[in-house]
Amino acid sequence: MTSATSPTSAASATSAASAAEPVLDSYRRAAIIGGGVIGVSWAGLFLARGIDVVVSDPREDIEDLVRAGLAGITPALAGLGLPTGNLTEGLSFEADLATAVAEADVVQENGPERLELKREIWRAIEEAAPAHALLATSTSSIPASAIATAMRQPARLVVGHPFNPPHLVPLVEIVPGERTSEATVERARAFYAALGKKPQVLRKEVPGFVANRLQSALFRECVHLVAEGVVTERELDEIVTSSLGPRWAVGGPFRTFHLGGGPGGLPHFIEHLGRAMETTMWPALGDPTFDDATVATLVEQANEAFGTGTVEELAAERDRAQIALMRALGETPDSGGTRA
Amino acid sequence: MTSATSPTSAASATSAASAAEPVLDSYRRAAIIGGGVIGVSWAGLFLARGIDVVVSDPREDIEDLVRAGLAGITPALAGLGLPTGNLTEGLSFEADLATAVAEADVVQENGPERLELKREIWRAIEEAAPAHALLATSTSSIPASAIATAMRQPARLVVGHPFNPPHLVPLVEIVPGERTSEATVERARAFYAALGKKPQVLRKEVPGFVANRLQSALFRECVHLVAEGVVTERELDEIVTSSLGPRWAVGGPFRTFHLGGGPGGLPHFIEHLGRAMETTMWPALGDPTFDDATVATLVEQANEAFGTGTVEELAAERDRAQIALMRALGETPDSGGTRA
Repeated sequence: MTSATSPTSAASATSAASAAEPVLDSYRRAAIIGGGVIGVSWAGLFLARGIDVVVSDPREDIEDLVRAGLAGITPALAGLGLPTGNLTEGLSFEADLATAVAEADVVQENGPERLELKREIWRAIEEAAPAHALLATSTSSIPASAIATAMRQPARLVVGHPFNPPHLVPLVEIVPGERTSEATVERARAFYAALGKKPQVLRKEVPGFVANRLQSALFRECVHLVAEGVVTERELDEIVTSSLGPRWAVGGPFRTFHLGGGPGGLPHFIEHLGRAMETTMWPALGDPTFDDATVATLVEQANEAFGTGTVEELAAERDRAQIALMRALGETPDSGGTRA
Repeated sequence: MTSATSPTSAASATSAASAAEPVLDSYRRAAIIGGGVIGVSWAGLFLARGIDVVVSDPREDIEDLVRAGLAGITPALAGLGLPTGNLTEGLSFEADLATAVAEADVVQENGPERLELKREIWRAIEEAAPAHALLATSTSSIPASAIATAMRQPARLVVGHPFNPPHLVPLVEIVPGERTSEATVERARAFYAALGKKPQVLRKEVPGFVANRLQSALFRECVHLVAEGVVTERELDEIVTSSLGPRWAVGGPFRTFHLGGGPGGLPHFIEHLGRAMETTMWPALGDPTFDDATVATLVEQANEAFGTGTVEELAAERDRAQIALMRALGETPDSGGTRA
């Protein structure tokens, strides 16, 4: 990808979303490669949007796993206002990769994060998928450029990295490789927007993309503060949910500091608080490691803070709260593309 | 403060909140020292909770500034369900510091962030305030230990650092100095909880306390990614509001990764994704500076992203969204302590 996306392109994503039906008319059949947690989540969303889904995964028990997974996320899909009446009507399974993608309008691959395996998978997909199919990988850590070296048409592959779980969290990071075409990027953007997601096209391939880099930067300081005994995990979580979390749900870090700068906005903020941050705060941030003592502290406090419920119960609780939040902010997807 | 606060102390904060009336019965009169943005916000919250407020600030136009400020935040107070009918009935002004605090049950100081000035102010407050008054400073950067060296009774001073704006964002970081008494800490916790805030007691005095350190860690990477041209400010903000923000509004970073670890929870997360984060992501994070080129980029993009509204308009929009979010999560304060 050579040309940078213009800052106004967010507007086109929005208009694409409101024209969801026509876009999704071109996507009647999806191949989900890899039926783990991410694959199941994509499958559920695609199905709820009226797209037939064939799941390809070599595991013998894949059908049971996927059906159980879909049953698990159905309440969240329904909570988002999506139709879930006959969710699995369009679901099928096909272990053979070439057969699975042979009639796909979109291929969303969620295989293990191993470069050689991804190259092998994508070489096979490219051979067998229709020429019109949109080809996307959910990878969180492998650049499309590296995978596409194995492909005859590297222009066709793009990263479509969801934030977990994909059926619920709006963000999809679209990360073009060096040779991904502009047309592929725009098709991916329109497709994810039509699904009700909030796609964001990155202008450069950087390790971890954007959301995971930011998450990792904040988490490093979290680990430091707990390891140093400034707060417990539970206390730190409560600090975040009662300040930064709701703030950043409503406006991002730049908008927040623009408003924190008073009438002078972000420029004023940078000159006053920003420079103080650079000279006194950034150098004071921690540089923790997961050594034995730190891991022991983290595990002990996690048991104390979260030991009262299963991960499944806690996740369901989180998902209900997240849907309530999205509803309050008017950010649940419309329920176009019904299947029920 | 010698003894660490137990992890179960969150429960006592909650029960203090539900017993708001009795606690606030002991706080009939507050002295707000410094009538800037933070002072006005505290004043509005105190007044809405039925506490008389005397504002002490040497500026000649302070009364106009505070009254205008209170009018500005009244919609947000009302949005939180607090009574605002006769908000300024209990409001008065007193430039003389000693007179202002002479009958105060609580003193909340919001002066400039200069150590010598704070020492001078607190020496004067200590001389003039009643022996029972709760003494708190809103400072975001000066430890109570450093201010209290000038006081005869350092056990009485505690940091009560709000997250801006104090009337709206639930968090108050209570940061005891080396000589702050346990009794002072517990009184502060009960007082802020009774106001409907979510106080959190830190176990150690560290520069920037907790929320601002976390914010600063994430913002460093934001500046890096924009300076490197990976995303624009607008795009980065949209990435955060569509992923990390809502996630952290619902559960903090540790809970999020506990749930991200699958059935194995946080221990599983650390062993697999955590160690990968340590070895590949943390070393790759940026180390930006506010040099001329970076500042020019940040200012240009801020004008492009936020130039369409005044800071005041954008802040009002943000506050409305934040209140809707808090309401959806059941986190607005009850409307006890009515004045109307």
